[in-house]
Amino acid sequence: MSATGLTRTPAARAREASRVLAALDGPARNAALQAVAGALERRASEVLAANAEDVAGAEGRPPAIVDRLRLDPGRVAGIAAGVLAIADLPDPIGAVLRDFTLENGIRIRKLRVPLGVVLVVFEARPNVAVDAAALCLKSGNACVLRGSRLAARTNAVLVEIVRDSLQASGIPADAVVPVGGGHDALDELLADPATADVVIPRGGEELKKRLLRDSRIPVLAAAGGNCHVYVDASADARDAVAIALNAKTQRPGVCNAAETLLVHRDRPELREEICAALRAAGVELLEGEEAWETEFLDLRMAVRTVDSLDEAIEHVNRYGTGHSEAIVTSDYAAAARFANEVDAAAVYVNASTRFTDGGEYGMGAEIGISTSRLHARGPIGLEELTTTKYVAWGDGQIRG
Amino acid sequence: MSATGLTRTPAARAREASRVLAALDGPARNAALQAVAGALERRASEVLAANAEDVAGAEGRPPAIVDRLRLDPGRVAGIAAGVLAIADLPDPIGAVLRDFTLENGIRIRKLRVPLGVVLVVFEARPNVAVDAAALCLKSGNACVLRGSRLAARTNAVLVEIVRDSLQASGIPADAVVPVGGGHDALDELLADPATADVVIPRGGEELKKRLLRDSRIPVLAAAGGNCHVYVDASADARDAVAIALNAKTQRPGVCNAAETLLVHRDRPELREEICAALRAAGVELLEGEEAWETEFLDLRMAVRTVDSLDEAIEHVNRYGTGHSEAIVTSDYAAAARFANEVDAAAVYVNASTRFTDGGEYGMGAEIGISTSRLHARGPIGLEELTTTKYVAWGDGQIRG
Repeated sequence: MSATGLTRTPAARAREASRVLAALDGPARNAALQAVAGALERRASEVLAANAEDVAGAEGRPPAIVDRLRLDPGRVAGIAAGVLAIADLPDPIGAVLRDFTLENGIRIRKLRVPLGVVLVVFEARPNVAVDAAALCLKSGNACVLRGSRLAARTNAVLVEIVRDSLQASGIPADAVVPVGGGHDALDELLADPATADVVIPRGGEELKKRLLRDSRIPVLAAAGGNCHVYVDASADARDAVAIALNAKTQRPGVCNAAETLLVHRDRPELREEICAALRAAGVELLEGEEAWETEFLDLRMAVRTVDSLDEAIEHVNRYGTGHSEAIVTSDYAAAARFANEVDAAAVYVNASTRFTDGGEYGMGAEIGISTSRLHARGPIGLEELTTTKYVAWGDGQIRG
Repeated sequence: MSATGLTRTPAARAREASRVLAALDGPARNAALQAVAGALERRASEVLAANAEDVAGAEGRPPAIVDRLRLDPGRVAGIAAGVLAIADLPDPIGAVLRDFTLENGIRIRKLRVPLGVVLVVFEARPNVAVDAAALCLKSGNACVLRGSRLAARTNAVLVEIVRDSLQASGIPADAVVPVGGGHDALDELLADPATADVVIPRGGEELKKRLLRDSRIPVLAAAGGNCHVYVDASADARDAVAIALNAKTQRPGVCNAAETLLVHRDRPELREEICAALRAAGVELLEGEEAWETEFLDLRMAVRTVDSLDEAIEHVNRYGTGHSEAIVTSDYAAAARFANEVDAAAVYVNASTRFTDGGEYGMGAEIGISTSRLHARGPIGLEELTTTKYVAWGDGQIRG
């Protein structure tokens, strides 16, 4: 029984809507996104009223959580602007990835098509509901949205606005289906491969692990990053300080922020200089196995001296989550080895880990950063929300 | 405890070897493949002796099974030639998929890199052991091979030849790790996400379903195809007969062979003509729900009259497995709707379903045809056995 009281499951409703969506052209999908943005602006007061209730209900929670939850008129306008920015991105659907003709004359094109139904499971921040819906709509996918209970009222109003706008645009409202309920309800969704073609967890490492363990729907893991900055024997001191500081402190709560500093044993003075700069920026430094394993997401950082480039690479491949890893070096061979041998979505030579981002990479908005190896690795933008189809045009060819 | 008596698990041994493999250049991987092909030729008599034992052990099994199992000198030479053909394919590793420079001067390349460790679970046909190992080696991946018990002796010798050749080429033998044991042993492998980065079932629908149900390793489903030929109201009669006949009978036991014939109700005479041709070719025709659901893989075929193109599309999307689907029509709008609305890896207009094949598609050898939507859809060739890595070269850039 779905939350809306209909007898068909949320998944079945989204699946049916996905077939309609897949048949729409780009301008129709963009028009719907423009309608969503307009409605968000017009109905901002409804969003803010619901959000005030959620914020009141979150009393006593850590300030960082409440802050992520709280909307104001500027943030709502920002959400609407984000939808318009997504509408303005190039249409990923229908792109021809290969075009070849067999000797017998059959012409085959490999086309980009929507995935179908995308399940997004996200924590706290309410803008994710709209971002995810907009990215899915733009890429021709229906979506099932499962937000956190903390933001339930805000999410409900946001999704209602999206669904009303779709209906007004002649698109089935069920292209975006909210699902609520407790942990059991999520388990039920995850247990049925028919729920969606992919599930994307957008939240912390625990959420990712839970989905990887429990889901029978393929998981595109967009979650935590235990990222490293390795300062090699030959590192430029100024670059090393600037990159370590930026990677840790520019925005400590995000997945591409660095969590561990590794320094080559030949540079004890540089280690001291970097640590002093980090401490001056309010960073608490920790040592030992437990620290190496931790994604702090705050102003704490692990630090370790390594004997060699090999030990650095080994450390990163052992403790890292395959997200974003940086080396600071002036030795080309060391840079090349780190780039080749570190196993991660993104590897940086003499640059901050903080650049791993759909916007920075010219892909527009993203639904997260994938640390999965299959399907998409790195920012999950519009193209990563598609699959392909070979379409062959013949005139009677048979196989000999 | 692994089959070889070592205390490390097969997966751990393959993982370690995969790091060595990933660091090899293309010529080194090709040299190893050439060594494998040479050893297969030299040691053909060992393979044939082991195979004779497997064939003797399979006494009483259906002749088709025994035939798939049986090798002769020509088939062994064919397996060796297949390895050389894989060595000759372009190197998929290191290809630059994107190359862009941020405004701040960081140059970022999106590179093709190996997936890591590939688990292949396959039934009967012993050539698959070598094909799969060769495709994985060529794409820089280690592999864990799990064959059927029926071919255990043949597979053991084939894998030993591959491993000996690797070692002789200076590559860790554990780049190819065989695993045996009963169903429990397979369950154990599938329960641990660390076993491999992807598991590819190569066999029937049952094997695929079992892996999709039981595996905590991501599954790239390369299994059965319930494929259709739809003869539209406007079909050319000669094309319709030829395509239906070819799709069903040219090689009935393969996944891209057609299993159901759908004919528009306006063409009863054409339905009769096609059915007569099929019967003359020894095809038994069946009607009804159960037949529509069945992948016969032999000279049986379901047949149904549909009221409209819509009903044909609905039938295909309901009973199909998303593999290869064909329409015969002279109506452009009908062709376009079928191509757009049928949800499958490959859709054919006026051509046989039998063309879905890595070789036909210019991709070289394949490890199967994926009906998954994530990562790879259609033939799984070398590129589909890779993932990507962003490598960024900077000179001290930090994020503002």
